[in-house]
Formats: sequence, structure tokens, C-alpha cells
Amino acid sequence: MTTFIDAGQHDLQDDLPGPEGRPAPGTGHRLDAFADRHIGADDPQIATMLRVVGLDSLDALENAVIPPVIRDGGTPALPEPVSEAEALAELRALANRNTVRVPMIGLGYHGTHTPGVILRNVLENPAWYTAYTPYQPEISQGRLEALLAFQTMVSDLTGLETASASLLDESTAAAEAMTLMRRASRLPTGAAFAVDTDVLPQTLAVIRTRAEPLGIPVVVADLTTDPAAALDAVTEGVFGVLAQYPGTSGQVTDLRPLIEAAHGRKALVTVAADLLALTLLRAPGEDGADVAVGNTQRFGVPLGFGGPHAGYMSVRKGLERSLPGRLVGVSKDADGNPAYRLALQTREQHIRREKATSNICTAQVLLAVMAGMYAVYHGPQGLRRIAERTAGHAATLATGLRSIDVTLVHENFFDTVLAQVPGRAAEVVAAAHDLGILLRQDGADRVGIACDETTTQTQVALVLRAFGVSVEDRAPGPALPAIPADLVRTSEYLTNPVFTTHHSETSMLRFLRRLADEDYALDRGMIPLGSCTMKLNATTEMEAITWPEFGGLHPFAPAGDTEGIRALVKDLASWLAELTGYAAVSLQPNAGSQGELAGLLAIRAYHRSNGHLDRNVCLIPSSAHGTNAASAVMAGMKVVVVACDDNGNVDLADLEAKIAQHREALAAIMVTYPSTHGVFEEGIGRICESVHEAGGQVYVDGANLNALVGLSRPGAFGADVSHLNLHKTFCIPHGGGGPGVGPVAVRSHLAPFLPNHPLDELAGPSTGIGPVSGAPYGSAGILPISWAYVRMMGLEGLTRATRTAILTANYVAARLRQHYPVLYSGRDALVAHECILDLRPLTKATGVTVDDVAKRLVDYGFHAPTMSFPVAGTLMVEPTESEDLAELDRFCDAMIAIRGEIGKVAGGHWPAGDNPLVNAPHTAQCLTGSWEHPYTREEAVYPEGVTPRFKYWPPVRRIDGAWGDRNLVCSCPSPEAFEE
Amino acid sequence: MTTFIDAGQHDLQDDLPGPEGRPAPGTGHRLDAFADRHIGADDPQIATMLRVVGLDSLDALENAVIPPVIRDGGTPALPEPVSEAEALAELRALANRNTVRVPMIGLGYHGTHTPGVILRNVLENPAWYTAYTPYQPEISQGRLEALLAFQTMVSDLTGLETASASLLDESTAAAEAMTLMRRASRLPTGAAFAVDTDVLPQTLAVIRTRAEPLGIPVVVADLTTDPAAALDAVTEGVFGVLAQYPGTSGQVTDLRPLIEAAHGRKALVTVAADLLALTLLRAPGEDGADVAVGNTQRFGVPLGFGGPHAGYMSVRKGLERSLPGRLVGVSKDADGNPAYRLALQTREQHIRREKATSNICTAQVLLAVMAGMYAVYHGPQGLRRIAERTAGHAATLATGLRSIDVTLVHENFFDTVLAQVPGRAAEVVAAAHDLGILLRQDGADRVGIACDETTTQTQVALVLRAFGVSVEDRAPGPALPAIPADLVRTSEYLTNPVFTTHHSETSMLRFLRRLADEDYALDRGMIPLGSCTMKLNATTEMEAITWPEFGGLHPFAPAGDTEGIRALVKDLASWLAELTGYAAVSLQPNAGSQGELAGLLAIRAYHRSNGHLDRNVCLIPSSAHGTNAASAVMAGMKVVVVACDDNGNVDLADLEAKIAQHREALAAIMVTYPSTHGVFEEGIGRICESVHEAGGQVYVDGANLNALVGLSRPGAFGADVSHLNLHKTFCIPHGGGGPGVGPVAVRSHLAPFLPNHPLDELAGPSTGIGPVSGAPYGSAGILPISWAYVRMMGLEGLTRATRTAILTANYVAARLRQHYPVLYSGRDALVAHECILDLRPLTKATGVTVDDVAKRLVDYGFHAPTMSFPVAGTLMVEPTESEDLAELDRFCDAMIAIRGEIGKVAGGHWPAGDNPLVNAPHTAQCLTGSWEHPYTREEAVYPEGVTPRFKYWPPVRRIDGAWGDRNLVCSCPSPEAFEE
Repeated sequence: MTTFIDAGQHDLQDDLPGPEGRPAPGTGHRLDAFADRHIGADDPQIATMLRVVGLDSLDALENAVIPPVIRDGGTPALPEPVSEAEALAELRALANRNTVRVPMIGLGYHGTHTPGVILRNVLENPAWYTAYTPYQPEISQGRLEALLAFQTMVSDLTGLETASASLLDESTAAAEAMTLMRRASRLPTGAAFAVDTDVLPQTLAVIRTRAEPLGIPVVVADLTTDPAAALDAVTEGVFGVLAQYPGTSGQVTDLRPLIEAAHGRKALVTVAADLLALTLLRAPGEDGADVAVGNTQRFGVPLGFGGPHAGYMSVRKGLERSLPGRLVGVSKDADGNPAYRLALQTREQHIRREKATSNICTAQVLLAVMAGMYAVYHGPQGLRRIAERTAGHAATLATGLRSIDVTLVHENFFDTVLAQVPGRAAEVVAAAHDLGILLRQDGADRVGIACDETTTQTQVALVLRAFGVSVEDRAPGPALPAIPADLVRTSEYLTNPVFTTHHSETSMLRFLRRLADEDYALDRGMIPLGSCTMKLNATTEMEAITWPEFGGLHPFAPAGDTEGIRALVKDLASWLAELTGYAAVSLQPNAGSQGELAGLLAIRAYHRSNGHLDRNVCLIPSSAHGTNAASAVMAGMKVVVVACDDNGNVDLADLEAKIAQHREALAAIMVTYPSTHGVFEEGIGRICESVHEAGGQVYVDGANLNALVGLSRPGAFGADVSHLNLHKTFCIPHGGGGPGVGPVAVRSHLAPFLPNHPLDELAGPSTGIGPVSGAPYGSAGILPISWAYVRMMGLEGLTRATRTAILTANYVAARLRQHYPVLYSGRDALVAHECILDLRPLTKATGVTVDDVAKRLVDYGFHAPTMSFPVAGTLMVEPTESEDLAELDRFCDAMIAIRGEIGKVAGGHWPAGDNPLVNAPHTAQCLTGSWEHPYTREEAVYPEGVTPRFKYWPPVRRIDGAWGDRNLVCSCPSPEAFEE
Repeated sequence: MTTFIDAGQHDLQDDLPGPEGRPAPGTGHRLDAFADRHIGADDPQIATMLRVVGLDSLDALENAVIPPVIRDGGTPALPEPVSEAEALAELRALANRNTVRVPMIGLGYHGTHTPGVILRNVLENPAWYTAYTPYQPEISQGRLEALLAFQTMVSDLTGLETASASLLDESTAAAEAMTLMRRASRLPTGAAFAVDTDVLPQTLAVIRTRAEPLGIPVVVADLTTDPAAALDAVTEGVFGVLAQYPGTSGQVTDLRPLIEAAHGRKALVTVAADLLALTLLRAPGEDGADVAVGNTQRFGVPLGFGGPHAGYMSVRKGLERSLPGRLVGVSKDADGNPAYRLALQTREQHIRREKATSNICTAQVLLAVMAGMYAVYHGPQGLRRIAERTAGHAATLATGLRSIDVTLVHENFFDTVLAQVPGRAAEVVAAAHDLGILLRQDGADRVGIACDETTTQTQVALVLRAFGVSVEDRAPGPALPAIPADLVRTSEYLTNPVFTTHHSETSMLRFLRRLADEDYALDRGMIPLGSCTMKLNATTEMEAITWPEFGGLHPFAPAGDTEGIRALVKDLASWLAELTGYAAVSLQPNAGSQGELAGLLAIRAYHRSNGHLDRNVCLIPSSAHGTNAASAVMAGMKVVVVACDDNGNVDLADLEAKIAQHREALAAIMVTYPSTHGVFEEGIGRICESVHEAGGQVYVDGANLNALVGLSRPGAFGADVSHLNLHKTFCIPHGGGGPGVGPVAVRSHLAPFLPNHPLDELAGPSTGIGPVSGAPYGSAGILPISWAYVRMMGLEGLTRATRTAILTANYVAARLRQHYPVLYSGRDALVAHECILDLRPLTKATGVTVDDVAKRLVDYGFHAPTMSFPVAGTLMVEPTESEDLAELDRFCDAMIAIRGEIGKVAGGHWPAGDNPLVNAPHTAQCLTGSWEHPYTREEAVYPEGVTPRFKYWPPVRRIDGAWGDRNLVCSCPSPEAFEE
């Protein structure tokens, strides 16, 4: 019986009779089910894997693996899944509820033209967006080279020695600069951070969020009119200063007096600078600034309702080792050829743990690549032309306004004009809105207008019309200069040939292809990185993010213009809350690290609201990801480490002891579940109870949520707060090392303490902790990806994915256990969604290290698993649900073959110092010279299972990272460096 | 002075003052000019090239190269160019003038879901769309493998032995089948071609267009009710039969009686079959058909207002050597590994010339790849499920209609129901239109409804509502079977593992990447193919073609729903007319070959309209492309060859002699201008005059229009008709061997004889020659590409492109002349936009052939130039305007280095039988074995100028084409074939 019209009934549930009246085959299976495309293994493959694991159904697997204590947390209420076509139609309907007007609001976000060649061949190309963070530099040379161009661009334009490979956004970069300057300063604790009044309001708000738990006083003052007096007025002393250049108001001020005054008082100076303006204005570095931060969004990256974009930071000589986040540098490979890799990794949170200087684990690689490539495509002359044109429009606007006797607040500006319209600001902004243009209302009397690359004469005219200029009017004469002569830039920038070579689309296209071809991403083969959940990023999920209706939204566009994206955010937040069993979710944190911080700040605020000002101890198991500790420190907590037992589980006795010891001061425990060892700890119930009983809160790190979705809900089994990683479990691609999205989810008592935003009252509770990201909804532009994933999978699909992910990990463990010991398993020797292979006995016996195996896997056509985390000397494998049996077997076969190779070293067949493992990876080039190795060329490059015609060739051999750290070069080398 | 509002003034012309009141740099140059991105060389590079050529300006070059006789043909009136962003905005506005309704019209075009992974990674991926026809099979293995999957799919589903790699569309495929059967038949000339009444109307019309000049009588009759009687009624005898399966009406009939009756009367049978239906219905091959043709559009290829889609043809054993178009086969390479290449090329028009059996030069590779990959992604079970679901919707519809006493014309159908609604057809169709659905009106009394993959229950219900079923009604019960039991398919199909391996998106993505990585396309480096104009296909040009507002239009959607695309067609036609100096342009021909045929048919019709029934001689210079002769034969003309002189120009004396000899019968001359030798013949004026004087028409083949645009207009210098190749001069990508678009442009006296279309009276003059393609506007779906190109370049940009293209060819000629003789130059030793390098003396002296040089270029990272056309033993180089100086120099350096290698063979340094040339190309694999050659491994794979880390590796070594032709295999080999 078929209902003729039932809009609520999705066609997926069609069970129409076949042409002969018999039901269509596969009944019970949905037609066109996206889950069947997302999950790699089909039913026969799943049956095969179950056989190898020794179980007879996925139910049996689930029952064996999942401890009863975390089950029965209720069923998430999700809508029934839809097909890919239906999801796209729904996204289209949401998109149509957005109205994209010309964004002349400014406030750090500007219209830009993404060059088509970059849009299609970077942002829409899986070779770029499915790549992982370049921890395996030999197979990441393309994006490392692209990031080096980004760093060079930032360094050149800001005039500062060293730039990192991007930060999360401008506001968090400014907060990072604050703590960097705090560390670098010789002033005592208690000294203040001075912020100029013309700094972006969201940056100031993020700084306040970040400064409060660290006890850093923040002073906001006009620092430019009389810098010396302003600084001297801060009685506690000033360790660091932040100024915006040009200011939020649009004003361009000479910062040299401020910098001089600050340096004279032992304060460091950070300038938040607009890179496009810096093509025309003196560079902060030239003026003596210590640090520059900012956003590179206007270099070709869609607005996306606030993100993701690449924030940047650059520093003067001497501060490079204090830079937070990722830094790409030049080193050399085993054959002495130049090669790129991440530099100075010892600074980083996962190594420094509670001594970390930042909790930033990632960068915004995909967006940094886009911004860098925008500079490559336009070159210094092109960027300058764009800047001049933008400034020209602003000058025309100023002239036009003056011609109707509108007073401008500032005479000197780059792209932004601030008009005095006493009492009329709202009216002018509304008139512009009606004409399709968004302006910034600054109180009752002022209107800000920001021009950009996309501004046209017609738009300038419409803006003037909003101010009351009639259509027939004409400009009164040539626009006046708006940049004072002594601030005009005279120094060169972007002089490396990469910025002057690829200005034709053909050349740019080939450059991008060449870079992409050097790298290994998910579009070539599996990336079995434990804890990173490198699964399918489906095309349908990716499609909407480049639609102008999402990509073109300014984060501070009025709510009425952004109904569609707001509805999407609301949907996604509620679905995530359902899936995790929490009461509320904030999507603002634009990385997992920010989610952690937000969650811990919520706990802190909760305790304080209860009058528990002293609860500041955070228990962290020894197995935790280093970021946990770093985040706790940033949240003003004291880290107390809890021991783990031999099985990698939290040592419950030690836990009780630590709780007893810190009972009154206990703020929280942070645990990862299932654990970083890939085990569903049976003790989780007791952990939650004990901590709660002592008045602490339970933070469950959601890094491993891919093992829980649909099976268990942290919010229901005892946790109070979690952050999720949408770039892991919910299919946002890793982008080669960012973007990430790290929503924070809380139970109802913590909901009042979620992040909020000073410029968007809908973005969070008024009682919230303030913003942790510059944009109200963080990286809203990529949320359609996770929305589509949940919408198309539905609860049944998500649950099947989780069960399959657990199965694939157990399949790999079962196949490899006889070749490599599998560390830490739970009941029945089963693991969760990842497994740890212990190389230490082999290393001890043969000298072959995890590094050697990781690099040798490249020769076999694989990305290595996670190395030496959580246990040094091991490999952690997470196959995810998206890999099919053929790929899983290819990986297992490779690992077994490598075990055989290790055996040949152990047996003396190959010497420890010269074998295919220690010499891995092998390039094609190394085949052409003389060959003195005890193994053949064929054994080197075509080991078992490698089909010669499909071989992936790494572009370089093993890279000497230490050499590069000793000889630090973090910008593009000259072409001569590549000459032999 | 800046005008505040001037909608007509594009922002490109901005000449705003810079920030200091000085004019922006680059004044005179437009800001954001697309031409600067399209043209590879910037001003300094152009100056360098001019210096090498020995001229001091582009003006001087133009004056030196372009003969006065072709100049001064007036200035084309084109709109001022716009920026890329503006062009996209205008395309968006055009798109918004289209209304995409649910296309249930049928008539051979159906809704389909393009899998996202195929859309993004094939249709939107330059690695696929910028590739050339796989004439160099060693660097085309990926798309050859994909085409083999297409052929296997067609062969399996139709049950016929051999399928070709696609044809232009279903209707032209049916016309090709007619001539194939005519050649294969033993019946005498005068026998008829019998077409069943249920054949698609556009197919019948194309058949009539094609049959008329060949003198083939076409009989249309009901062939299925009583086949024997129907065939016997044709007194002249029937050599071939065409039936549609299922019929246009939707009816599914048992074709076995017809096939039997036809074979009994020595007639061959072609079945035009729907591939999706064939997953459920007995295959034509099983029923004894000789040939199957059809369209593969519904296998994931957007409707695109009629094209491009891949037509198909398959034939029974014994007819494979008569197949028109491209055929991919399996052979082996120099190392004995399996390798793919085009098979049986001796059949083809460029080899057989006037003996050719078809003028088809190309295929629809890009679309065939999509359709083949759709089958790979869905597999046999998935396709069957889609078909069953589609049939189920049709059955539900039938049941619903019967329940309100609507009579159906046929009881047996697959996806299409034909309803009897006496006098109400228009009303029902209008009601459906209002509900967002397009149905087919068949006269006053019948309405056709075609279901497809995208059909939903809701749509079925809406259709019923259009017939008068109220919303509350429910289906009366399970739908009845609509396919008779004895027509149900029982045979297997798509049994090759490729169709069951890649059903997860992850696996599919990697398969597509792996295939793409094997190939060399424009995204890797230059493809300097003389006569093929492999220039930039810019992203902005490509973007709109995958917008649903263009991609989703059914070709027979009402004019009111298709205003935007019709306006675009009109714009483009008028711009092309302006640029060529003709009065009218038809965009219907979906390949250059069809444009040639249309032009010649227009000439034929013109002569006949003047009573000159005997004018049937077509003069063709000996240097012409073979297609010219083949087209002339197809247009019912007799080819008379005119000699060329030693400079490659038409021998004017011989021309006069031939004109004199055939004066009364002279129909036309076909010349290419500039000539296929790459020369602007000075005699063109006299050629036109002489032919005109004798009453003939001048056909100028537009293959080399890239040397004329903006400088000269064929319609103004004496030609009467030309076809253009939008896939050459106007940036439609070659797609790896199609799509192409070949508009025909005519002077006003020929305009009444342009193509038209029976189903769209706006598509051409009522006095026209009938359709030459199945769709009214041919491959309308890709016309936005050329539209965007012209819109963004403007006349100035196009002219600059032409001048630059001529410069780059002369630069290459100048640099290589001292190493290889340059054949055929014009005044001052200058060439047009391409140059011919003569290898014959070197071949004679050393044995090194053009083949060896072409394959050796692969080792250097290049696609070879055109080989042995127009002169055997030569290479023809066309660099185009899009290559920058660095790439041109890389090519020249490689050619010079190869000349050095030839010198080493000549000098005895390397033996003639073992050197890097004869052994080229070298794979990485060949480095691993023992090395017995007199040159090193390094010399083999990293010759001068090749950077090891950026090396392109061919997947196979030189392919033995002859071996493959002797051992013909044209479907996917089993995986075992690849085992060593």
C-alpha cells in the first residue's frame, strides 16, 4: 500500500514492488542509503571480518566490547536519514533562507574573490582537503611548500622575521600573543596587558576570556594619542601592548610613538595588522613591533559566517621559539636534498604537556594554503593593485560624504571610513540594508563603511545614496589621499620568485597539481592514524560549503539575513546534544583545543558561581593527550597526574588517593573515553562517581567519540562536559592540518557557562564565559559538512558506522596480533576503535624503530599510523568504518611483510645499518644511481603488494628534522637552494 | 571624475586614484582582467619572444604574418569584457531565468543523480576534463581504462560483442547504424531503411537528414505488430531496420519476431535501447539484433538542455571493424605488460579520407567516463535496484491512473506510461507544469509520463493530481507487473570485478584518483598539439555547467522554462557571428564533424533551391584533414582533390584546372585557413573568387580559427560557410576525447539552410536541412564555457590572445629552426599559430622516427605534438596563447636536448636499436631490473630539465598497437591478465 502524498515520508523508505510485483531486492536496506557509501565494508566483508575476530555478529561484538555501565543511556532522537539528493535539497532550502548582501561591515572580515583556480583545485579538491597534519613530512611536501609560501607572505608583509603556519583566527592569535609576551616579559606577575581602544571588539572579548583565568589584568585605553601617558597610567606596569592597524574605526595611526614608549617601559608590542593594508602601509616590523597577528581571510577565503580562516602570527628574531602552533621549516633529506618539515616541534603541547605554552594543536592549513596561493596568484604587484583599488573606493566614499557635509571621524584610513551622522546611524544602516549593503552601526551617531576587493563603483554609489546622496549627484572631484606620506610603505615584499611565477591560470593550476601530487591524502589510500579518525569526507557533505549563500555571509550580518545558517547551527547543536546525551552544545570553539578550554572554563565558572573559588585542581591520567594538561593550565587550573595501571586504565587506587589529597580543591577530572589506549575502561562509572562525590566535575575528552556514537552517551553515563571533534567523528576533513571544529557539550548545570559573544546575543548565554573564538559561531562555514553527515546517516547509520569502526580495529588487531603484540585490550582481548601495536621488543632486538616502520609503510603506499602515542615505541592504528576489506587487508599484508623484513634484520640477512627499513622511504630518484645496498632496487620500491603502475612515489627521502632545527629557515628558500 | 551610478559601466574600467591621488599602477591595463590570466605570457615575456623572433612589436608581427587580403573585414561588435566575478554574476542571472521542473518528458532524456564523487572528481576535475584524445596511449591509460569499463558496460547490457568508446548522441548513433548496416548489407543500392513508428522523433529526423544526401529511402512503419507483412510491404527491399526498445511511447514489445523477419529478408537490425531498461529486459543481443545504439545520459550525466551525453553503439561479432568512431582495446607494452590503446585506427576518417565510413573524429569521452563510472559505482545490483524502483514508480502510476479510469495505451512498459485522456492532454500537461512537473503531450489525447532514478512518491502523487486524483486518494493496491515474464532478463551483466569493487565512496574516490594519476593532461604541462589548440579551460568558464539551473534542463522543456539558456545560446551565436563575419550561426552540431556536415548540407540545399541539382563536386586540397572528405561524401558530394605546391599552399593552377573540369558540377571547395600547414595562404582571395565565379561555394574549415579571431573574419574575406570548434578556439575542454561543439556559421544566403529541429521551432529555420544532432541546441550544457570566455575576454582580449598564439608558434619555430627544419612558412619565414618540424632527414639518417621523439618527450614530461599530420614524418606544434615563456622554453629545451640525443645515435655513440629514443618512454619500473643499455638509468628517466621530485611517470612503456589489433579485446580484462 503506497500513500500518494506524504511529505513527511522520505523516499528512502520506498519499498515499492518490483516490475513483477515482487519486492525490490535488498528490502530492509534503504535504497540509495548514504551509509552504504560511507561505510567501506559491505555485509559479506563484515561477515568475513567477524569470522576472523571470532564473533558471529555485530551485536555480539558490541556486547563483548561495550561495558554495561555506559549502556542504556537512552536513545538519541534524530530525524530519519535522507538520501544524498534529499540532503542537498534540504541544504539548498536552508541556503535560500540566507540573504547575502554586500558585506561592508568590516570588523576584520571582508569581501574577497576566491580565484576559481584555487577554489576548485584546493578547497574543492580531496587531494588537499583530505590530507592530515604533515607529521609525516616525506609525504606532505606539497602542503609544506604551500605553507612556507604562507609563512613567507606573512613574514614579508608584517616585516617580522618568523611567521608560523597559521593560527585559528585573529582574536585567538591576539590572545596567544598576550601569553607569548607575558612569557617573554621580564616584568613581574601582576603586570597588565594594555589594549588600545581601537582593537576589534571580539578580539578584546577573547582576550578577556583568556586573561581572566590566568590572572592577567587587561587595561583598555587610548594608547595612541599620548602613548607614554597612557602606559604610565597603568600603575601595575604593562608587560605587553596590543594595537590594531588600521584600527577598528578605520583610522591609520603612526604606531612608532607607541612602540617606542612601550619598549622604553619594557613592554612588548603586538600589532594586529591587516595584511592587505600592509601592501601600502609601513610594516609593523619596520616600526619595531615584536609580534604581529591578524586574519588572512581577505586573501581569497570565503567569509563563511565567520570561519574557518587562517589567523596568523609573526615575531621578531629571538621570539621564534616561543611561537605557538605549527611552524614549517626547511631541512634536508637523507640524500641531502632540501626538504620541508614542521620545525621546533619540541615547543608543542603534545610534547610539553603541562609546561606547554599554548594548547594549540593544529593550524588552519587548508585556509592558509588558500591565502598563500592567493598571494602566489596575484603577486606583490597584484596585491598592491587590489589594495590601491580598495583604498581608492574608500577615498571616493570619503569625498562623496564630505561633499554632502558628512563629517568623517578620521582623515587617515585605508579601506574603512567612519562617518558622523548624529542620531541617524540606524537610519543610514537600514537604508543601506534595503539597498543590499551591510554597514556597521557604531552607536547612535556613527556608521562604518569598509571597502574591499569586491567593492564596485556601483556599490560606492549605493552607500552614498544610503547617506542621502541622490542618484544624479556626481563626485565633487578626485578623492583626497587618505594615507599620510610618512606611513606609506617603501620596502619590498614577496620578492621570492614563487610570488611572481604563477600569475597565469595555467601556471597556477599546474603549480597546485604539482604540489598536490607530492602528498599522500585519503584520496590515495588509508591513513590509519590512531586518535585522528581519518574517515571519508563525502563529496555531498562538502558541496554546500562553497555555495555563496553560506560562503558569502559576514559573521555580523543581521539575524534576519542569516536564518538558514542559524537554523543549521541549531539543528546540528541539537543533534550533537542528542548523540552525546548532553543538554546544550556550543559550536563556537574552532578547534578541539578551544573546546577543551571552553569546557574547563565552564567548570571553573560553575564552581565560582557556587562560591568555590578554590576548586582549581584538575586530575589528568598519565595517558592523556598533552593538550588536556595545557588546556587545564590555560583555564587557571593546577594539573595533578593520576597514574595508569598496566592495562592502560586509570589506576583507581591512585585516583582515590589523589581525590582524597585534593578533595577541597578538586575542580575536575579529564579523561578520554574510550581511553587513549583504545580501551573501553570498565571503571568509568566509578571514576565519575568518585569525582562527583568529591565535588568535582567530569570532563570526558571526545577525541574517541567515533567509538561511542549511537552506542553510548557520555552525558548519560556520568560526564558533565565533553568537547567533540567534528573533524574526526563528524567528517569535517582535516584539510592537511586544519580546519577543525571542537564543539563543547555540557549537562544542564553547566549550560549557563557556555561561550557567548559580545556582538551576537544569540550565540550563547548572557551568563557565559565570553567568547573563545573571534566569530560567534566559530567556523560556521564548514558546519554544513557535519550537518549533512548526521542528516544522511541517521541514528541507524551512525550506529552501524560505530560498530563497523570497532570491528575494523579488532580485525586489524586480530590479523596483526601474531606479528606484533597488541597492547591494552579489554575483555576477550578486544579493543575499541583503534589498536596499539607494540614495536618495542622488536626495536630492542633489531634496532628497527617505529620511525623506520612508519617510513617503510610509505614504500608500501601507506600513511603511517600514529607514532609513539600514547606509548613511546608503539604504533596506534585506527582504521575507521570507511575502509573496505581490500584496503584493510592491503594494510595488514604490508605490516606483515614489514615484520618479515624486520625478521631479516633480526636474522642477520640484512645489517642493522643498511636495510629497506632504515633507508625508507625510497624515492624513484634513488634507483638511478649506483646501488650498493644488500637488498635490490625492486625490494626497495616495489615490496609485496605494490603494483608498479599505481605506485605512490614520495618526493624526498627521510628528512633530518634536527638539522633543520639547528639551521632554522622558515620562509621560502631561493631557487638556487634546489640546485644540486 | 567618477560617476556615482552607472550600471552600464563595468568596474573593470575603474581608473580610480590610488591612495595618494596618483593613478593606480597599470593604468591602461584593466584591473582583474581575465585576459591576463588566460594568456600565459606577460608583457616582458612577450618582449623576449619578439626579440627572438626578430620583431619589435605584436603589431609588427601581425603586419608581417597576416596577408592584406584577409584584413579589413570590419570590426566585430562585442560587449566590453567583464571580470570573472562579473561574468559569474551574469551567468547566475541567466541561470535564474531558467526554471528547473521535474523532467518526466522522457523522449530519451531522463533525470539522474550524478554521484557527488563522480561530479567533483571527473566532471569538475581538470585532470579529466583538460586531457586530450588518447592518441598517446602510454600517457592516457587512466581514461582508456575508464572507457574500457564503458565499453564493457555497453557490451554487457546490450548483449553484443563489441562496443565502441561512445558516439555523439543516440540519434547520430542511429544514423551511423543505418550507414553501417547499409555497408554490411548485401542488398543493392535503392533498398530502404525501415524505421519503426515508435522510434524517437528526433532520431527519425536525424536519420532523414543523413539518409537524404546518400539517397537512402527511409520508410516509417509499424514494424512490430506484423513484422513480416510490414517488411514485405517495402517494395524496394529493406537492408536495415531500426526499432526502439522500449518504444518512445513507453511500450515494451518482444522484438524477436521483428528480428527474425528482418534476418529472414537479409536485413540487419539495430535496436535503439535504454541501458537502464536492459538491466531488467532481455538484451537486444540475446534476441539476435546486429547493432544496438542509445544514450547513456541517464547513467549520471546531467541533462544539460540536451547534451553533451555519450551515445553508444555495440555490434555483434563480425561487425566490429565497421564500427564508427573510437574503440579502445587491450594490447601490451614493450615489457609485455597489459596496456590499453585505441584499436583498429585504420578504420578512421583521418586515415581513410574519402573512403571513410563515417566522419566521426571524436567520442564523448568525458561523459562516457562518467556513465561508465556510474556503473562502476552502482554495480549490477545497484543498477538493477534503480531500474526496479523506476519501474515500480511507473507501475504505481499506472495503477493510480487505472483507478480513476484513465486508459493506458500499453499494458507493458518499463518506466514510461502513456495515458489516454481524450481532448484533455494539454490541460493535464499544464496542470502538471503548475505542480512543477514536465510531462509529454502526445497530440490532443495522450500524455506520456516517464519515471526515472530521481522520481519520488511525492512526484508520482503530483502527477496523479494533475490527472485529477485528489490528495486524499490512495493507491488502489499493489501495482501490477508491467514487464511480460518472457521479456524479463535472466542473463548476467557487469560481472567484471571492476563493477563490484568500488561501491564505497572512499574506494570510488581512490579509483578515480588512481586513473587520473596515470594520465597527462593540461594540468601537468603543455600539450602542443598542432591543429588541436589545447589552451586554458579556465575554472570560471567551467563553473556554471554544473549548476542545476543549466545541468537540470530537459531539452524539450517549454521555452518559458528555458529563457536563460536560450538567451545564452542567442548571445553566443551572435558573438560568434560577429567574430567570424557571418550572418547566422547554428550551435546545434555537437562536434566539428557534424558542423562540417551541416555546412555542406546547407551548400547542397542552397544549390538545390537554385535548381542546381547536379552541383555535387567538392574540391578538397590534398593537405586537408581527412574528415573534410568524409563529410563531403556524407553530404552526397563527390570529392575532387586539388594539389598543393611545395610550400603546402593550394596549387592555384591545379585549382583552376579542376574548376574548369568540374565547372557545371562544382558545389564547393573546402579549405582550412590558415592552412593545415600552419600558413596564411596569400592565395585565399583568388581561391574564393575563382570558386565563386564558377558558381561554387567556399567552405572554410574553422579548425585554425585561433589564428584569426579578432584579426580577420572568414565571412568577410570570401567564405560562405565555416564550422568552428568551440573545443579548440573557444575553450571548451577536450575532455580526454570529447565533448566537442562544432557550430556552423553561414553567410545570409545560406542561413535558410541551417539545421533545425522537429521538436523546437526556435532551433532553426523552417526551411532548414533538418537536425544533425538529437538535441535542438546540441551540447547546450557546455555552451556557458564559450559564453564566459568571450564575455570575459572581449574583443581586445581575444585579439591579444590570437596575436600571442601566433607569437608563441613563431617563437618555438625560431628557437627550433636550427635544430629541426621548419616546414612551410609564409612571408619572412613566419608561421601562423603552429609550426611543422620536419623529422624526415633525421629519420632517414638515424632511424629515429617521429614516434620515437613523441615517446621520448614523455620522458621529458611532455605530451607530444601532432604526429605525421598533415605531413608524414613531421611534428606539428601549436603552443597556443596560454603557455608562458617558462613552459615554452622547457619544451624547446627538451626538443633541443632530444636533437642532441638523436645526434648521439647519428654519431654512433648509441646504437640505432638501443638508445633512449627507441626505448622511450621509460617507466619507473624499468629502472629496477638489470640495466643493459648503453645509456644510464638517469639518462633514461631524468634527462636534462626534468626535476626528479616533479617527474611525471608514464604507467606503461611503448605500446604495441598492432599486436592488439591482431588480438582484439575491447572489454575489461580479468584481473588475472595483470598478474605477471
